[in-house]
Amino acid sequence: MINVGVIGYGYWGPNIVRNFVEAGETCVLGVSDLSPSRLALLRMRYPHIQVTADAIGLIRDPRVDAIAICTPVNSHFELAMTALKAGKHVFVEKPIADNSDHAQRMIEEACRRKLILMVDHTFVYTGAVRKIRELVQSDTLGEIYYYDSVRVNLGLFQHDVDVMWDLAVHDLSIMQAVLEETPLAVSATGMTHVAGRPANVAFLTLFFASNLIAHLHVNWLSPVKLRRTLIGANRQMIVYDDLESSDKIKIYDKGITVTNTPHNLHEVLVSYRTGDMWSPKLETMEALLTEVRHFADCVQQNCTPLTDGVAGLKVVQILEAASRSALDRGRPIELAQAAMAV
Amino acid sequence: MINVGVIGYGYWGPNIVRNFVEAGETCVLGVSDLSPSRLALLRMRYPHIQVTADAIGLIRDPRVDAIAICTPVNSHFELAMTALKAGKHVFVEKPIADNSDHAQRMIEEACRRKLILMVDHTFVYTGAVRKIRELVQSDTLGEIYYYDSVRVNLGLFQHDVDVMWDLAVHDLSIMQAVLEETPLAVSATGMTHVAGRPANVAFLTLFFASNLIAHLHVNWLSPVKLRRTLIGANRQMIVYDDLESSDKIKIYDKGITVTNTPHNLHEVLVSYRTGDMWSPKLETMEALLTEVRHFADCVQQNCTPLTDGVAGLKVVQILEAASRSALDRGRPIELAQAAMAV
Amino acid sequence: MINVGVIGYGYWGPNIVRNFVEAGETCVLGVSDLSPSRLALLRMRYPHIQVTADAIGLIRDPRVDAIAICTPVNSHFELAMTALKAGKHVFVEKPIADNSDHAQRMIEEACRRKLILMVDHTFVYTGAVRKIRELVQSDTLGEIYYYDSVRVNLGLFQHDVDVMWDLAVHDLSIMQAVLEETPLAVSATGMTHVAGRPANVAFLTLFFASNLIAHLHVNWLSPVKLRRTLIGANRQMIVYDDLESSDKIKIYDKGITVTNTPHNLHEVLVSYRTGDMWSPKLETMEALLTEVRHFADCVQQNCTPLTDGVAGLKVVQILEAASRSALDRGRPIELAQAAMAV
Amino acid sequence: MINVGVIGYGYWGPNIVRNFVEAGETCVLGVSDLSPSRLALLRMRYPHIQVTADAIGLIRDPRVDAIAICTPVNSHFELAMTALKAGKHVFVEKPIADNSDHAQRMIEEACRRKLILMVDHTFVYTGAVRKIRELVQSDTLGEIYYYDSVRVNLGLFQHDVDVMWDLAVHDLSIMQAVLEETPLAVSATGMTHVAGRPANVAFLTLFFASNLIAHLHVNWLSPVKLRRTLIGANRQMIVYDDLESSDKIKIYDKGITVTNTPHNLHEVLVSYRTGDMWSPKLETMEALLTEVRHFADCVQQNCTPLTDGVAGLKVVQILEAASRSALDRGRPIELAQAAMAV
Repeated sequence: MINVGVIGYGYWGPNIVRNFVEAGETCVLGVSDLSPSRLALLRMRYPHIQVTADAIGLIRDPRVDAIAICTPVNSHFELAMTALKAGKHVFVEKPIADNSDHAQRMIEEACRRKLILMVDHTFVYTGAVRKIRELVQSDTLGEIYYYDSVRVNLGLFQHDVDVMWDLAVHDLSIMQAVLEETPLAVSATGMTHVAGRPANVAFLTLFFASNLIAHLHVNWLSPVKLRRTLIGANRQMIVYDDLESSDKIKIYDKGITVTNTPHNLHEVLVSYRTGDMWSPKLETMEALLTEVRHFADCVQQNCTPLTDGVAGLKVVQILEAASRSALDRGRPIELAQAAMAV
Repeated sequence: MINVGVIGYGYWGPNIVRNFVEAGETCVLGVSDLSPSRLALLRMRYPHIQVTADAIGLIRDPRVDAIAICTPVNSHFELAMTALKAGKHVFVEKPIADNSDHAQRMIEEACRRKLILMVDHTFVYTGAVRKIRELVQSDTLGEIYYYDSVRVNLGLFQHDVDVMWDLAVHDLSIMQAVLEETPLAVSATGMTHVAGRPANVAFLTLFFASNLIAHLHVNWLSPVKLRRTLIGANRQMIVYDDLESSDKIKIYDKGITVTNTPHNLHEVLVSYRTGDMWSPKLETMEALLTEVRHFADCVQQNCTPLTDGVAGLKVVQILEAASRSALDRGRPIELAQAAMAV
Repeated sequence: MINVGVIGYGYWGPNIVRNFVEAGETCVLGVSDLSPSRLALLRMRYPHIQVTADAIGLIRDPRVDAIAICTPVNSHFELAMTALKAGKHVFVEKPIADNSDHAQRMIEEACRRKLILMVDHTFVYTGAVRKIRELVQSDTLGEIYYYDSVRVNLGLFQHDVDVMWDLAVHDLSIMQAVLEETPLAVSATGMTHVAGRPANVAFLTLFFASNLIAHLHVNWLSPVKLRRTLIGANRQMIVYDDLESSDKIKIYDKGITVTNTPHNLHEVLVSYRTGDMWSPKLETMEALLTEVRHFADCVQQNCTPLTDGVAGLKVVQILEAASRSALDRGRPIELAQAAMAV
Repeated sequence: MINVGVIGYGYWGPNIVRNFVEAGETCVLGVSDLSPSRLALLRMRYPHIQVTADAIGLIRDPRVDAIAICTPVNSHFELAMTALKAGKHVFVEKPIADNSDHAQRMIEEACRRKLILMVDHTFVYTGAVRKIRELVQSDTLGEIYYYDSVRVNLGLFQHDVDVMWDLAVHDLSIMQAVLEETPLAVSATGMTHVAGRPANVAFLTLFFASNLIAHLHVNWLSPVKLRRTLIGANRQMIVYDDLESSDKIKIYDKGITVTNTPHNLHEVLVSYRTGDMWSPKLETMEALLTEVRHFADCVQQNCTPLTDGVAGLKVVQILEAASRSALDRGRPIELAQAAMAV
């Protein structure tokens, strides 16, 4: 049994607590939050869990084996470093840190102390994303042409991060789990509609060594919620709509066929191919439950998590480059060197 | 009664012919096409319409008052100039021409000869777009924050134009009709997945003097057809889904409210506002019928069409800038001077 | 080439004319309608087709080989009998006649004169229904448990027939083409909401010798249009949504598994089975074009149409029984003897 | 603070427990279930709640003020009577009892002892149903023509009750809350597809004194989940789709207009009316939380619950009549006398 201390019981914390409670292999020993009303809510739900406003005290509690951090991103580094230095394993909400230098140092600290550092890239643990990865790895789709995602809703305007750091991080983590290539450059555009606040709408294009192209579209100010990813490829193509209650993934046997023309060897003919669609059955276990159990297994067996610190760092590096590009209306920024540094 | 000659009976020509036949004020005298099988199809449908492979002969037929051009875009300039010089009014499929110089010369020729030059920006004549324009002009939405459109499907790969010149032209023409601002710069990215062919997937961001931002997303290689536009604004927001058979436009009384905090005058609070949604009844007449009747009225009363040559030119200028940007992975291109030149 | 005379150019007539014009093997010689404005509309579209208000004259025109009847149902019998007696093949809009006695006499007249009598059960010729029939006949679904259809919209209130005779006829013709069993009894309920008019909402349950059950739900006064059929079976199940522009048919590998319990042989365990879904590619040719070509083939090769007079009669027999049941709030009416009479 | 004992921690029990825990005014003192694994699950989630296999002991615990019953329907009567006789208020899952005699006796017992007896007709407490009731009561819809509901999914085959007693009970409780009329007769049809088990698909038509008609369509063996209600009326019409995450209720300004013809006073003209659609903002609090707070308020203030024992009884009376009708393929059964008895 792994004893967990959870820091932060705001938006995401209740899900973290609930899943650590239900995971079976873990036990929530204490929860800290600065807000008395959040702690009162927790106490009503789980009278047996200890509450505190003192995060550092919770981290240092000798009975605690692991710390889960569900606080604003600019506090991740400080809290994670304190926990690692206290010898505690760390499970940290996405994005792993507010900049790549911080992420790098967290990785080094965890490595030095042989502790588990895992970032909560929740979508990677969904049945849908696991199925997509399986389809890509088994070469069912063929050569991938594009990855195109829309993730928009009427969302909470964050104070400290823009919409890319809040929403695009999900798509970047999914792409990382699914695609076999790493992006080399990014062009991003965006806009804020509240003076002095970070961008609330943004568009990212990612370039790769091949002719794969990825595009992410994130927005906190959409009247409707959309979560839809298209993956184009030369053999089959995927539509992944996370808002569907069933048939979240549809695989279309559609595409183009390129042939040489009989008359002119330099000219090609592009014709259509349309066939059946199928939608595979997906695992329906809550992703976060799968994920906290994976964390527990990594702690117990000293394995590297699927979404380890390096996975978190790479996402942050892309976000940093996208932020620079967006300041200059989409001027492309190279990622290659940053990626190599890891 | 206006006698019309139609050049081109390929993909779009049959719709043009059918609507000129049914408009009441117009009569299709002849149709030209280079393909005997296309002419045979026309003859079966309309045994009374004269067919020919000789477009120039049709243009010069003294009984013909107006020419409708439904041929590949690189032939628009030549055919339109021939028709104008022969004293015929011109109705030309979108985009108006393959470059802005050609468009400019078509405008000048029509102006000099006092002939009508109209570009077929069909969507501008739909009940949906007319309703959106009405909502914008009556200030129902308030300040517009973004225009965001997705127009993707498994589409015909054109030989001569890329997906922006084929599909984004629709969105640019709608934006032109609906928005009161003109874009100042564009950042575009895209990719081809058939060696040697123009881009089949592209993303455009348009920048304006205000903090309005527009984004267009076009793709010929999508497994599913999507036609969805979000218009964000500070009072109400629109979702326009052209594939819905009813309720194509939904207007959401949703948004954010920005207030100063009581404690800190420099800080603002962003809170949500959610209310009802409504979907106005729309005119259901076929857009192309409305459009060809508008063309007939302009010819008879010597008026300027809603989608005249200048409207066509401005769209082509943006497409040219976007094409340049896409060659350099999204480097922003200024539009201001080009726009001023008109 | 078969020369066709079309009687009635109201709601459905224009589709009939257009498809006989485009079929290739048929030629529309003349069209009759009592309304001058309908004939004027036809003349604008097809100046080469002869128009008349005299249906009998058109039927008797010696150049005419076949008559298509697109008039209100209470005139079908009179017009069809006149045409058959004049030696003309007959293509008649659904339902074949206003009562089963009339239908029976039309069948006998056609049989005696060796003429083709075909009823326009359009849906039977759609790619979707043909695919469903193929799936049933190949035993892909297994034993069929239920057929459940909803067909509602804001529809034209007919003067002479109720909503069952207008809309349920579609489902009855589809069931006839798809299912291998014939219903034995019917219970129907319904209501009119305009005093003195026939029912505008109705519900039919059909019983069979096996434990198959069918249910049809039709409504002229629905705020939304729905066209959705569920077919439950023990191996796979179908959802057929005719309003979808793609993926109209979805086949679910779902169901129940019934096993004996280990402890109690008299008790059964019912457990779930959920698997993948697939959506087969469908033929996309317009159903009515397929249908008029089938009519032309039957005329030329003297074959029995898929939707012959007997098919039309059986549908009318069910409608008659349903009408009787609805008068008595769903009291079940036996169909067996009527069906045997054919 | 009201101390609650919950009997049954199977399918619905966990929702009951969670909401009594979070309601604020109530406290879950103990939970009983016969399954050790269910009790272990509860213990993991709420280590502070007492668990037991002894329901009677829990009922008799002097600290317990109220009993919530979430067990199979055939045990409701016995458990509720025991609780009432022990002086405890009762909150019982739907349907209130397995027959109307049992329901009647529960009502009498609660009445005699001045205890609250409330049935968990959850949907009555949703924002959607409350809004529909408000629209009906304010006469926004006008005269109601029909109530038509589809509630189908791949559902658990119950041992002891058929699909009407499991699913139609929801619609009957919604109708009861929304409509101002009480049904007078019912015609029901249905079928079982597992030998020896109760019907898994059923269709109910309900008749009223006016020309209102209601139809319910329930199915445990549908490949897809549907929850859609249409309410037709003469002024406005409602579509209520409970599976939509937003815009669950749409109100259409559509209908028919009936006018006398100028020429013939005995004939009426029925014409269409189509207008805008709107979708009101709904309360989003979880229905069950609203409901358990309402129960707590009724206990504390000795008020009659919105869904009291009589509401539960009336639903059971309709279910009994429908069961009789279904045995005879839809033969109509009168409800009037039963309803009067209450």
